[in-house]
Amino acid sequence: MATEIRNVTVMGCGVLGAQIAFQAAYKRFPVTAYDINNDALVAARGRFERLAANYVKNVDGADEHNTRAALDRLTLTTDLAAAVADADLVIEAIPEILALKQETYQKLADIAPAKTIFASNSSTLLPSDLVTYTGRPDRFLNLHFANMIWLHNTAEVMGHPDTDPKVYAEVVEFARAIGMVPIELHKEKAGYVLNSLLVPFLRAGMELVAGGYADPGDVDNTWRIGTGAPAGPCQIWDVVGMRTGYNIMSHGDEEERKLAAWLKENYIDKGKLGLESGEGFYKYV
Amino acid sequence: MATEIRNVTVMGCGVLGAQIAFQAAYKRFPVTAYDINNDALVAARGRFERLAANYVKNVDGADEHNTRAALDRLTLTTDLAAAVADADLVIEAIPEILALKQETYQKLADIAPAKTIFASNSSTLLPSDLVTYTGRPDRFLNLHFANMIWLHNTAEVMGHPDTDPKVYAEVVEFARAIGMVPIELHKEKAGYVLNSLLVPFLRAGMELVAGGYADPGDVDNTWRIGTGAPAGPCQIWDVVGMRTGYNIMSHGDEEERKLAAWLKENYIDKGKLGLESGEGFYKYV
Repeated sequence: MATEIRNVTVMGCGVLGAQIAFQAAYKRFPVTAYDINNDALVAARGRFERLAANYVKNVDGADEHNTRAALDRLTLTTDLAAAVADADLVIEAIPEILALKQETYQKLADIAPAKTIFASNSSTLLPSDLVTYTGRPDRFLNLHFANMIWLHNTAEVMGHPDTDPKVYAEVVEFARAIGMVPIELHKEKAGYVLNSLLVPFLRAGMELVAGGYADPGDVDNTWRIGTGAPAGPCQIWDVVGMRTGYNIMSHGDEEERKLAAWLKENYIDKGKLGLESGEGFYKYV
Repeated sequence: MATEIRNVTVMGCGVLGAQIAFQAAYKRFPVTAYDINNDALVAARGRFERLAANYVKNVDGADEHNTRAALDRLTLTTDLAAAVADADLVIEAIPEILALKQETYQKLADIAPAKTIFASNSSTLLPSDLVTYTGRPDRFLNLHFANMIWLHNTAEVMGHPDTDPKVYAEVVEFARAIGMVPIELHKEKAGYVLNSLLVPFLRAGMELVAGGYADPGDVDNTWRIGTGAPAGPCQIWDVVGMRTGYNIMSHGDEEERKLAAWLKENYIDKGKLGLESGEGFYKYV
């Protein structure tokens, strides 16, 4: 491995945290998976087991043997000090609540050794929003993964002005070493690359439907046939979910707030939340 | 065929006009292809021959026999009156110049029989921009095709408030009969469906590069891996061409005009026009 990072700690074993931890372990890194209590660790253990089974089914080269070995490389703990005592890299994937992240970084700053790099998987916070709590501006950046990490294997790497370029490069190498395609952001950008592309695209699709210009099926047909993509914007909205759509749009400009209100009235209030509820722009039965 | 449209006239045998005429003939419609002089018709004949060869290679079910039959169903003429004398549908695909279109529709209005439906393939003009010159508001609408019609087989159907719904439905059926997926616009919309999705998406990709946030390869990797699409925005820009990008962006809002200036300075003025010049966001050798 080209990276000097060896001991990895993932904080937070929710959907994405568990995927990150398992993927790193699958790629032969010793991984400590931290969560706040035993219930969370039981849930995490279940996630890891299901990921192992999923890899055997869906990932080229994965089998009972090497996924079992990945599980064996995972250490689960609720002891934060122990979890980070010898960590080269801590990947923070805790809930997206600013106060919680602040508090967590303040704790980490005290107990992690000086060598430890902190990387936040935050979707909505920039490194600048968190850096003052980390106690190590030069060794802090964001490292953002996509859901279904084994399939959508991008890792968006975003520093802030004081991130040490060597640390940045080290994390890029680490991302590569765990099978990711590193996406290098040269500056801070809300939404990174993926959401910077996805949000205007999805918004445009919603505007066509909300404005009464065209039906979801025609909007999606146009995109699929015109660009060869597997899915159009309304199909993607149904996967993302209408509640997430509402959250994004209700924080936007005036047009977006109108779309949020439209989404609430016509979908969310009627229980049409997308794929998760069985109906959104499409019906799923 | 469910459509009552039988005799089709295509006005203008440029790249797209020729594709529309050939596709309709391939789907067994007798097609009159009109252009302004013999040189244009010679060029058109060449286009039709190349399309026939292309279909044999690239279209399932196409062979020497049925593409030859398609060519035999095409009548080329420079006589506009003869071209439209018994037309059920005239598809107008002349250059995108408002004055030229106005003049053409005024001529057509006089010489075409009352039964003839007029459909404009205009990319940038709405039916409302042209309707007053047609002499038949109820029998006028836009029917917009995509380049490489045999592959990108959408036909966007867009009326104006006075288009007869029966005429609209008739044209939708015709689109289906020539192998298109009809995309029904319920109202006028600049950019139809495809460009309403494509322009904000392509703009977002260009912003990431122009703003120095990420490199074209990383922007495109993110989109391809994240969504499963075959191409990212920078790859599409290179196909669309930087000059077209400049034209779109220079008519936009303040941010878009800045992007146009950036595109001019960094690409167009350096001869990097995209795929057509061998270099754009990528080099093609």
